Amino acid sequence: VYPVRPQVPAVGGYEGVGEVYSVGSAVKGLSPGDLVIPSPPSSGTWQTYVVKDHDTWHKISKDSPIEYAATVTVNPLTALRMLEDFTTLSTGDSIVQNGATSIVGQCVIQLARYRGIHSINIIRDRAGSDEVKERLKALGADEVFTESQLEVKNVKSLLSNIPEPALGLNCVGGHAASLVLKFLRQGGTMVTYGGMSKKPVTVSTSSFIFKDLSLRGFWLQKWLSADKAKECRDMVDYLLRLAQERKLKYEMELVPFDKFHSALEKALGKHGSQPKQVIKF
Amino acid sequence: VYPVRPQVPAVGGYEGVGEVYSVGSAVKGLSPGDLVIPSPPSSGTWQTYVVKDHDTWHKISKDSPIEYAATVTVNPLTALRMLEDFTTLSTGDSIVQNGATSIVGQCVIQLARYRGIHSINIIRDRAGSDEVKERLKALGADEVFTESQLEVKNVKSLLSNIPEPALGLNCVGGHAASLVLKFLRQGGTMVTYGGMSKKPVTVSTSSFIFKDLSLRGFWLQKWLSADKAKECRDMVDYLLRLAQERKLKYEMELVPFDKFHSALEKALGKHGSQPKQVIKF
Repeated sequence: VYPVRPQVPAVGGYEGVGEVYSVGSAVKGLSPGDLVIPSPPSSGTWQTYVVKDHDTWHKISKDSPIEYAATVTVNPLTALRMLEDFTTLSTGDSIVQNGATSIVGQCVIQLARYRGIHSINIIRDRAGSDEVKERLKALGADEVFTESQLEVKNVKSLLSNIPEPALGLNCVGGHAASLVLKFLRQGGTMVTYGGMSKKPVTVSTSSFIFKDLSLRGFWLQKWLSADKAKECRDMVDYLLRLAQERKLKYEMELVPFDKFHSALEKALGKHGSQPKQVIKF
Repeated sequence: VYPVRPQVPAVGGYEGVGEVYSVGSAVKGLSPGDLVIPSPPSSGTWQTYVVKDHDTWHKISKDSPIEYAATVTVNPLTALRMLEDFTTLSTGDSIVQNGATSIVGQCVIQLARYRGIHSINIIRDRAGSDEVKERLKALGADEVFTESQLEVKNVKSLLSNIPEPALGLNCVGGHAASLVLKFLRQGGTMVTYGGMSKKPVTVSTSSFIFKDLSLRGFWLQKWLSADKAKECRDMVDYLLRLAQERKLKYEMELVPFDKFHSALEKALGKHGSQPKQVIKF
């Protein structure tokens, strides 16, 4: 899927937390025992020892929740940037997203709520969807609909006291993307950051001309160009602070290394829907 | 198609040139005999006499080419705005459009050329397409392709010395819109202003995420909000100056009123492809 292919043989892992083992004599600001994450994220975290330039590492507070620190640099950052970079949202505004159970989706709900922004969330129809709705509402979701609930002429009539959203987030494509477009207000923007259904986005001519919608895309790896390093680390610190205050949480499982095989199977979806797997070496 | 419906009974006609017959005593800057156009355009030009507030009328130079003055406020204005409002184009840049034989398309070619911008043009496959290509090239088109010519893996290989376009214009939808998207460079924008095929625009997830394309829409009637009146008239004057200098021309037929019926049939496409019909009352 991604247009980035590491040369093989390569070491896997793009995120993670490490402990500083030793530092060169010229290194300032890092000492043995410090916790660090690669920021911007970079390949090769699945190894016992890594030697890299000290600029690669971002020192994090020792009381950062470790499993969040290990997973903060991609999904939560994507959620944060998408809420910031495409429209100006004010308290009381709303957004709509599909794929709301994804980690990005869970972060969007919480980061929006934290800023006083309502979220309208679209999930798949599947067994247990009522329970999923409750879980997302517990995170701060205002509305959660399954796709089949939205098979009505006017989806906006389903919204009680929430304004029409100016921003939509799409990580599914196909019909689920069309549902996001249906919710958007005149002049709204939909940002595509994934395509889980493997289906393209289809848009009517009138959506562009008369509804004046804008369609954009977001890819964190492109955003994380060199000159964003500082901004990126500030964002990581911000998100980890929220995680520490329990204002940001998402579903994951911290797994010891000797359970690697079953964690891999869970991550590959062999046992149905499972939380994100974070390996502890 | 349009979400604007005049109350019936209504007088047709949205563009046209009139001659001032008489003015009220408080009116300054307009005298009997002056040529005027409604600017912004407004319904009701198909009548012998019209009484409206003097602000409605934009006085044009008496040596303005009359058929251009009668048709300048919608299509050429649309072409001009779309070249200006979505990307910053510099001399040597290029654009791509489908529906290149439309009046908007013909204006885009000439306005682009006038600014030193290359145009890549996509037309339908039909009898006489070689002749159409020659006509568009005579207007200043750099490249003209039929849709079937673009059934190759890499459309960009067809471009010799033209840079990849940052701006695409779509008035067709469906496959012809996908061809515009294929030509666009990384980070490019496609503006939809029509949907002649009645088919929606379909976009892959990777076009948004990895190619970072933006999709937008343009509708002149929305752009022409009250506070654009002055800007609008300056644009009209600019375009009419170009028309007078023969730097802007497009295919139309000036028809006396007693040929109204055959002109209407031509305009409705009953005799195949015909130039735009401009009625002289």
